Amino acid sequence: MTRLRRLVLERLMRYYRYIVSVPEMRGAKTITSAQIATALDVDPTQVRKDFGAIGLLGMGRVGFDVGEVCVAIRRVLGFDDRLEAVLVGAGHLGGALVTYEGFAQYGLQIVAAFDSDKRKVGQRVAGRIVQSTRALKPYVKKHGIRLAILTTPAEVSQSVTDRLVSVGIRAIWNFSPTQLTVPKGVKVRNEHISLGLAEISYHLKQ
Amino acid sequence: MTRLRRLVLERLMRYYRYIVSVPEMRGAKTITSAQIATALDVDPTQVRKDFGAIGLLGMGRVGFDVGEVCVAIRRVLGFDDRLEAVLVGAGHLGGALVTYEGFAQYGLQIVAAFDSDKRKVGQRVAGRIVQSTRALKPYVKKHGIRLAILTTPAEVSQSVTDRLVSVGIRAIWNFSPTQLTVPKGVKVRNEHISLGLAEISYHLKQ
Repeated sequence: MTRLRRLVLERLMRYYRYIVSVPEMRGAKTITSAQIATALDVDPTQVRKDFGAIGLLGMGRVGFDVGEVCVAIRRVLGFDDRLEAVLVGAGHLGGALVTYEGFAQYGLQIVAAFDSDKRKVGQRVAGRIVQSTRALKPYVKKHGIRLAILTTPAEVSQSVTDRLVSVGIRAIWNFSPTQLTVPKGVKVRNEHISLGLAEISYHLKQ
Repeated sequence: MTRLRRLVLERLMRYYRYIVSVPEMRGAKTITSAQIATALDVDPTQVRKDFGAIGLLGMGRVGFDVGEVCVAIRRVLGFDDRLEAVLVGAGHLGGALVTYEGFAQYGLQIVAAFDSDKRKVGQRVAGRIVQSTRALKPYVKKHGIRLAILTTPAEVSQSVTDRLVSVGIRAIWNFSPTQLTVPKGVKVRNEHISLGLAEISYHLKQ
């Protein structure tokens, strides 16, 4: 299989979410590309192409087998593998991410939370005791953690990243509003919570 | 100007964020499409096309005037208009959004927060007293609020949406993990915090 690009991966995630979470899909055995396309506002040809890229072939007008689609997407995206992450930055957003129960279905477990603020260290967030960031490097090393979720203030994110990378972190899910520099082979995924505002604000202006 | 599509709006937001937030841009008078393209991993032709769509013309090899670019994007996306929003759902994520100071630069003000949980009502979140959702409809009506930010549990989001729409809400920024049905003319922007996981999880599998 050729390496899948970011937008393909995101669409696969959307298809999966739609299929498993939308009430009218419960109990359905098959689904057509047209159904998915209409619900998610993408082109049906795009849906079939994305499915084809992960080896899913439709059965003509009947569409696709729902179970097969789910299994294929989960396998490609690695949802059946347990993925352990550390959270750095135990503020409001950090607390929201640690508390969010939806991650478990994708295999993600936030196993520890860290903060440099003495008032937060020792406190409990969703059952985890917030640890000092001084314990971050040894923890990541000892447990072989590959993913870090960053909700730190922008000004410290790069130095935290450097420390994480030095002990073997392979991916950073960056919620802090800044660009990070990492060595080749380390993946950074930037989340911009404000991005959606562009669409909303533009719509309300019309 | 033709109506801009979602992906164009998102890219304009990314360009804007890059130009105003990245340290090396401070003090720069001009910027090239190549600089933006490299930093944000898009095609330079795409950058020029997006700029052209909002009336920005480059000056050959010198590129674009930074000030003009910022003004044009802010105008098109409506960042200089004050946009008042209510927040429904004062949990962890709701608290993170209310606390986030970055929204102000885009004109967004979260003017009130609501929750149906009696233990949260009356409590303070970032200086705002959480109000009962029973007060939601009168508040939206009285203040002519057009935008609602939803961080409610999935199972109540549709009924909250119906109530909001009935009193004139024009856009919903949906952080709750469910699809919403709204009448034509009402904009829903869905934020899927899990979306980025697809890319991260896939990368870590390779």
